[in-house]
Amino acid sequence: MKLASLKKGGRDGTLVVVNRAMTHCRAVPAIARTLQAALDDWDVVEPQLRQVYEALNSGAFDMPDPFDPAVCHSPLPRAYQWADGSAYVNHVELVRRARGVELPAEFWSDPLIYQGGSDSFVGPRDPIHALSEDWGIDLEAEVAVISGDVTMGETPAEAARAIRLLMLVNDVSLRNLIPGELAKGFGFFQSKPASAFSPVAITPDELGEDWRDGRVHRPLTVHLNGALFGQPDAGTDMVFNFPQLLAHVTKTREMEAGSIIGSGTVSNKQGGLFGSSIANGGVGYCCLAEVRMYETIEGGKPQTPFLKFGDTVKIEMFGRDGSSLFGSIEQRVEKYPG
Amino acid sequence: MKLASLKKGGRDGTLVVVNRAMTHCRAVPAIARTLQAALDDWDVVEPQLRQVYEALNSGAFDMPDPFDPAVCHSPLPRAYQWADGSAYVNHVELVRRARGVELPAEFWSDPLIYQGGSDSFVGPRDPIHALSEDWGIDLEAEVAVISGDVTMGETPAEAARAIRLLMLVNDVSLRNLIPGELAKGFGFFQSKPASAFSPVAITPDELGEDWRDGRVHRPLTVHLNGALFGQPDAGTDMVFNFPQLLAHVTKTREMEAGSIIGSGTVSNKQGGLFGSSIANGGVGYCCLAEVRMYETIEGGKPQTPFLKFGDTVKIEMFGRDGSSLFGSIEQRVEKYPG
Repeated sequence: MKLASLKKGGRDGTLVVVNRAMTHCRAVPAIARTLQAALDDWDVVEPQLRQVYEALNSGAFDMPDPFDPAVCHSPLPRAYQWADGSAYVNHVELVRRARGVELPAEFWSDPLIYQGGSDSFVGPRDPIHALSEDWGIDLEAEVAVISGDVTMGETPAEAARAIRLLMLVNDVSLRNLIPGELAKGFGFFQSKPASAFSPVAITPDELGEDWRDGRVHRPLTVHLNGALFGQPDAGTDMVFNFPQLLAHVTKTREMEAGSIIGSGTVSNKQGGLFGSSIANGGVGYCCLAEVRMYETIEGGKPQTPFLKFGDTVKIEMFGRDGSSLFGSIEQRVEKYPG
Repeated sequence: MKLASLKKGGRDGTLVVVNRAMTHCRAVPAIARTLQAALDDWDVVEPQLRQVYEALNSGAFDMPDPFDPAVCHSPLPRAYQWADGSAYVNHVELVRRARGVELPAEFWSDPLIYQGGSDSFVGPRDPIHALSEDWGIDLEAEVAVISGDVTMGETPAEAARAIRLLMLVNDVSLRNLIPGELAKGFGFFQSKPASAFSPVAITPDELGEDWRDGRVHRPLTVHLNGALFGQPDAGTDMVFNFPQLLAHVTKTREMEAGSIIGSGTVSNKQGGLFGSSIANGGVGYCCLAEVRMYETIEGGKPQTPFLKFGDTVKIEMFGRDGSSLFGSIEQRVEKYPG
């Protein structure tokens, strides 16, 4: 099943069921006005939404609305929880080296997760807004799950049952603000501005066998300014799977329906020490920090700049049949007009 | 104006207007069903809520419901944003010393704020649940504001206009999980379980002249197991006021209505180096970590244990006339039954 939230209808948007081909959609106010409302009562609502989904796919509705990702917000325009893992430890190791910090051994056994801000996400086609290019604007292409309720202390196997939906994320990072902020000891804050999510959230069954072991086994495709920049496989080198991330989040607290848990930047090691670029025959990268580290290792300093005003980012994932699974995140970096 | 959320009515509870004496209340479904809904449309809703408040205070309603804090949830049972400052730098300095970490000089000029989790707060009379006493369970008594919308890059003076409501907080901390978690570099996560807020949120005008300079100038009273433990003044030694905290939060992102920003543990320096206990004639403490540090300085090691199952915490603030301003947070530490 595919779900999206149109921007119209208020701060939480308007829930629509989208057909598999993402050509048409249908609002379902009699079932749930918003995605959060659906998640709050998922066991009751989900079968009703599936009936609409099947009817859309079979052409049973005479006049379904055309589906336009450009009028979509993120599936949850605002959420009660957004916690982002760093499950691809290769990425963490690379970025840490770029900051001159060693990777502790326990990072391979204890998930690293940061608490994100979730009050005002931006839409999948909205600008990446910043007041200054000097902040070191970077993308981070990721996969995320939306969960149902999870109680404290569940095992990964128990928490796995709470996974409701999957999305893509652009977890924008302000690289030049990170070192100073992490040195203060309280983690990211200003260095993590508003994230954007794919126009469509999908139930795991849409992936068939490519959803297994709590991981999404498909490449994540990233274009920068129209050129292919990365296509690492999201199921490869994901050291901690989503159930493990959920269990980590809920070790000392309950977690409520509608919580979003991210994978961290998708990153493949590719046999070499840190992976390689598309130009060099590799699968490329899902953030600029990685290629800059690669350049530092090879040539002594980074060559690729961070994002500038006017640059564009496109993040998408395709199924085995070549069709887009989530629709695309397409963002242009712009100076905040405020 | 005083507002609260009854637990009944769903995940976001039921908004009620409470009279000044906190003896009676009235649900206002025709105006706003939940506090978040009221905050989403504050300019329209607030004058209508005030009419109900004035009518409650003047006894205009024949049969207002009795107000019972025991059936209240936190005013926002779940929120889209919970960011907690450490505005009382004396507390930060003490806790850092307890961890053997020096305080960087810029902590006196650059606010320290951590991104909290906000998907499932507990109510003001709910237990502090933990799976183990070994986590080092501590209270942190604080003041917090609920904001309206704030755009990116506002000055403190601009952001001040977005302050809608004030509350008290118990920002429970798991002290024994903090060192390992902060060493990982991504800030608090498992060491910050669910917070509880005062039963009542109030508009700043309820404080009269005691709300000035973006600070609450009243003592914050803490009882542990029935004995007075702290009564430091929330307006003293608050190095960064709430408008400054809001401006810090929104340097690189917008913030949406219903966001909660905390002051950090209230802590007075009291002329001495780090303040002193009630027994020693001081104003005492709003967390156990401070008294333990004081004991370490005086006697070489901490004497006061962290909270045990069965211990009780009470947090309250009184106006100049001796009346309770927010109602009390009263929590008992209990083993999570899960």
